[in-house]
Amino acid sequence: MASKIALLQINPIVGDISGNASLIKSLADQASLAGASLAVTTELAISGYPPRDLLLQSDFVNACHDTASSMDSAIPILVGTPVPSLGDRSLPGNGVVRAGDSVREVTRKQLLPTYDVFDEARYFEADERPGIARTIAGLDIGVTICEDAWQHCGATPNDYDSDPIAQIVEWGRQGVLLDATVNLSASPYHANKSGIRIAVARSAAASLNHPFLLANQVGGNDDLLFDGRSVIAWPNGTVVIAPAWMEGVLIADLSNPEGCIWLGDGDITILDPEDDIEDDDEDLLDAIIIGLSDYCKKSGISKIVLGLSGGIDSALAACVASAAVGAGNVTGISMPSRHSSQHSIDDAKVTADVLGIDFTIRPINDLHDATDIALADLLANGNPVAGENLQARLRGLIVMAHANANGAMAIATGNKSELGQGYCTLYGDMAGGYAPLGDLYKMEVYALAREFNKRLGANAVNESTLTKPPSAELAPGQKDEDSLPPYPILDEILRLHIEGGLDATEITAKGHNGDIVRDVLTRLARNEHKRWQMPPAPRVSKRAFGQGWRQPLAARHDWRH
Amino acid sequence: MASKIALLQINPIVGDISGNASLIKSLADQASLAGASLAVTTELAISGYPPRDLLLQSDFVNACHDTASSMDSAIPILVGTPVPSLGDRSLPGNGVVRAGDSVREVTRKQLLPTYDVFDEARYFEADERPGIARTIAGLDIGVTICEDAWQHCGATPNDYDSDPIAQIVEWGRQGVLLDATVNLSASPYHANKSGIRIAVARSAAASLNHPFLLANQVGGNDDLLFDGRSVIAWPNGTVVIAPAWMEGVLIADLSNPEGCIWLGDGDITILDPEDDIEDDDEDLLDAIIIGLSDYCKKSGISKIVLGLSGGIDSALAACVASAAVGAGNVTGISMPSRHSSQHSIDDAKVTADVLGIDFTIRPINDLHDATDIALADLLANGNPVAGENLQARLRGLIVMAHANANGAMAIATGNKSELGQGYCTLYGDMAGGYAPLGDLYKMEVYALAREFNKRLGANAVNESTLTKPPSAELAPGQKDEDSLPPYPILDEILRLHIEGGLDATEITAKGHNGDIVRDVLTRLARNEHKRWQMPPAPRVSKRAFGQGWRQPLAARHDWRH
Repeated sequence: MASKIALLQINPIVGDISGNASLIKSLADQASLAGASLAVTTELAISGYPPRDLLLQSDFVNACHDTASSMDSAIPILVGTPVPSLGDRSLPGNGVVRAGDSVREVTRKQLLPTYDVFDEARYFEADERPGIARTIAGLDIGVTICEDAWQHCGATPNDYDSDPIAQIVEWGRQGVLLDATVNLSASPYHANKSGIRIAVARSAAASLNHPFLLANQVGGNDDLLFDGRSVIAWPNGTVVIAPAWMEGVLIADLSNPEGCIWLGDGDITILDPEDDIEDDDEDLLDAIIIGLSDYCKKSGISKIVLGLSGGIDSALAACVASAAVGAGNVTGISMPSRHSSQHSIDDAKVTADVLGIDFTIRPINDLHDATDIALADLLANGNPVAGENLQARLRGLIVMAHANANGAMAIATGNKSELGQGYCTLYGDMAGGYAPLGDLYKMEVYALAREFNKRLGANAVNESTLTKPPSAELAPGQKDEDSLPPYPILDEILRLHIEGGLDATEITAKGHNGDIVRDVLTRLARNEHKRWQMPPAPRVSKRAFGQGWRQPLAARHDWRH
Repeated sequence: MASKIALLQINPIVGDISGNASLIKSLADQASLAGASLAVTTELAISGYPPRDLLLQSDFVNACHDTASSMDSAIPILVGTPVPSLGDRSLPGNGVVRAGDSVREVTRKQLLPTYDVFDEARYFEADERPGIARTIAGLDIGVTICEDAWQHCGATPNDYDSDPIAQIVEWGRQGVLLDATVNLSASPYHANKSGIRIAVARSAAASLNHPFLLANQVGGNDDLLFDGRSVIAWPNGTVVIAPAWMEGVLIADLSNPEGCIWLGDGDITILDPEDDIEDDDEDLLDAIIIGLSDYCKKSGISKIVLGLSGGIDSALAACVASAAVGAGNVTGISMPSRHSSQHSIDDAKVTADVLGIDFTIRPINDLHDATDIALADLLANGNPVAGENLQARLRGLIVMAHANANGAMAIATGNKSELGQGYCTLYGDMAGGYAPLGDLYKMEVYALAREFNKRLGANAVNESTLTKPPSAELAPGQKDEDSLPPYPILDEILRLHIEGGLDATEITAKGHNGDIVRDVLTRLARNEHKRWQMPPAPRVSKRAFGQGWRQPLAARHDWRH
């Protein structure tokens, strides 16, 4: 069998129908030149994933469908696209068409994930059977869409009534023999997700008894990240994986894993049947950078500004920003107050100098004095948190003035541990259009700072920043540990609850102090109102705040106590 | 037939299982004393609606179910509660149990709305048939849950595969005769929704050929509002409606609409078969007040602070705040700048004086001068919007200092028209824990200000505020109309697009200037990033920003141009 199938691993812009179509065509043309006879896009490639409420506009759905099915191309392309609803009061489908064939539709998605970051039952009508593309480029191909393949190996949180992979297996038993089954995916990233995706592909290939090819979207769309890593799995468990975090074309030689080719930067990975891959800090760092860089690129933002406190969070945020938009487009502002130590300014300057970003020092003393006078009565008698927040908000004001004056985007530098505890100031350090570290626990921030230094070959985050006790420096001698448990403990409690779903009793049974656990979970519940107003953060954990974490805001009643 | 059924129109707190149980029991006891022989709660009354991600915790679901099914009461109660999932990998149900009967479950919801503000497919497993409670208090009762009754008259946006009302009708044909069908609802408010709800009840009663009784939740939960207005409909179209916006018990005399009783403040409304009701500004004002007052009550907030600019928005917001938490708990701050006119301060003072709220004047001149010096380089050379925003942010800083010092909640005073156009400042006038006017178009703000004056019998919003041209006063002589179309036009364009789903071409075809329409829709799309960070606003329109309006943030590509 000489036929080669190209998986187009693209980074679409949601809503940019014609731009996405051009991208698909350009990659398909490359694939054709490299000898592929059929190209397969990712899920909803023409609209970008997730199109969210754009899908409620029928003219958007029609424009996607018309563009996809009228695309001209050197080789046949199976294009993921919204497809019109089949009745007056039904929803559109999440479908696949063949470029250039406006008559026949190939298939519609059967299993519509509606959990965590997914909302597909809100937007799509489910179909009842997977598709087949017959005698296309000399091949007979089973066609599935993302979640369709996940029920088979039990990798979905809940059971569906049907199993599209098993349906294709059953067709095989009835004599409908296929050369391969493809899967058009927009499978979001989270830490250690890629191993699960590979298991899904292996399980499908083993049951189907033919190669299973999964084309995955790549890039960041707001808070959702897609890591690419398109996969080809053979029935014996051999797997070929495309590079993460970059666009390109994976050309599958169905008969020979060694014959697969990647058109683009980076290299393919071939795994023997017994091998697995594991994510590492390098991958997590890539994820964070891509999240910010794609948010900027897709929103037309070229410059970033942030407060550089000399602490670990803003230092790593500066590193990520410089990697995302280029050091020459980043401004770091040191804004020392009467409570700031000299080492904070020095450490911030080291980060800026090593990265080569613009660095400005704007002490907030004069403004702080002015507010102290203007608000003397409040500050003298009220809750002292008013004074502490004032400093954070003066800094937010300065950062935003920079952003507005220069057409830059401010980024918020907070991490998941402090956001989870409300240990941050609304309109102060939470100000910004994007929070690159917002889904990283504090200890992950440290790990990624070391990883970034390693990658850079220089200590953009210096040893002082890496080792001094974390402090918000909003009051004399203030340390984070005065208000919060040590971060290694805090992180673990939060992770067990948020990602593991354990309650206070279960976490305590794992050896944590019951009072600490209760305090942490209470603060988590009480500060949901802050997270409601946080900027988007790239989702790198199994459960991030935001789409995948929907607490009732006013449910301040911790029902367990 | 002497049996009387009590509909418990309750205002639950999401997550407060034991508090909600006490509330149910207390109303059921009142109902019993008033002669009712059976009580029916609202949907998920024991957890409050919507419990959102609390439902992902199986111990929460179990605690709800155990509490509901072990409740002790003078008369039988049909209690809405989450019920445990039926398998390891399935979701819980949205169910009904009989208080005191931990063995049998009455029913589970069949139709799970997953559109607009609803996310039920995310949390619940659908059941396949409606329930019957037999010989309970001498009655045989059909039992349905909210959406279950809406498919029958075509009032859902999309079609479901089944129609629970038709199923009960079919049982009737087969000889299963019922005395009434009840419906446990948490049917959210939006303008003119109650007329639809009455149509649903009439349609069900007519088809069932027996009375249809709908118990609806009341009160605000974050951005969702529930108006109560529990309904009893007879087959001939006669309808009895409970008061809106307050708790109480509607006791149905099945044989006699005139014999129905309301236990609580306000009066029932009896509609003849040919009559309808229409919402008015009075109702809309109640909605806004309840939203804020319940948010405060349920979050333990007793004091409110806001900036009082002398403009219409902050004036109405002050009125709403004083109605929500009491004038003595509201502080209005006038923060004149170098661009503010004296009439702004005067008008703000009138509002404060008439309402009797605390009033403080804190000119921002000194702070403004200090920031002008500190940021001179930025302000001299950068985009002038930096200077305009600075003023708004200094005001936000002052309002938040008040809030933090005094344990009050700041409210944001913006309206839907300006939020939709990005004509507002992040961390400035958008700062606050709640945005009471965030789902009101500008012209609705004017209408409600007049309505509030009427209700108060005094002009809390004076004629000057009602008639002067709207201005943000962030630059000399600035008027909103310099940047935006006149509000009557802007409002209509936004409404046609957001609520009506019309695109630019269709709106233009309705007689609007095509360039203006395009500008408005472009600004709407471009400013989604601001709305991502807006505080919760009580949802009073058919489609609010937030849950029911999910644009991709980075989809800045207006796909039509």
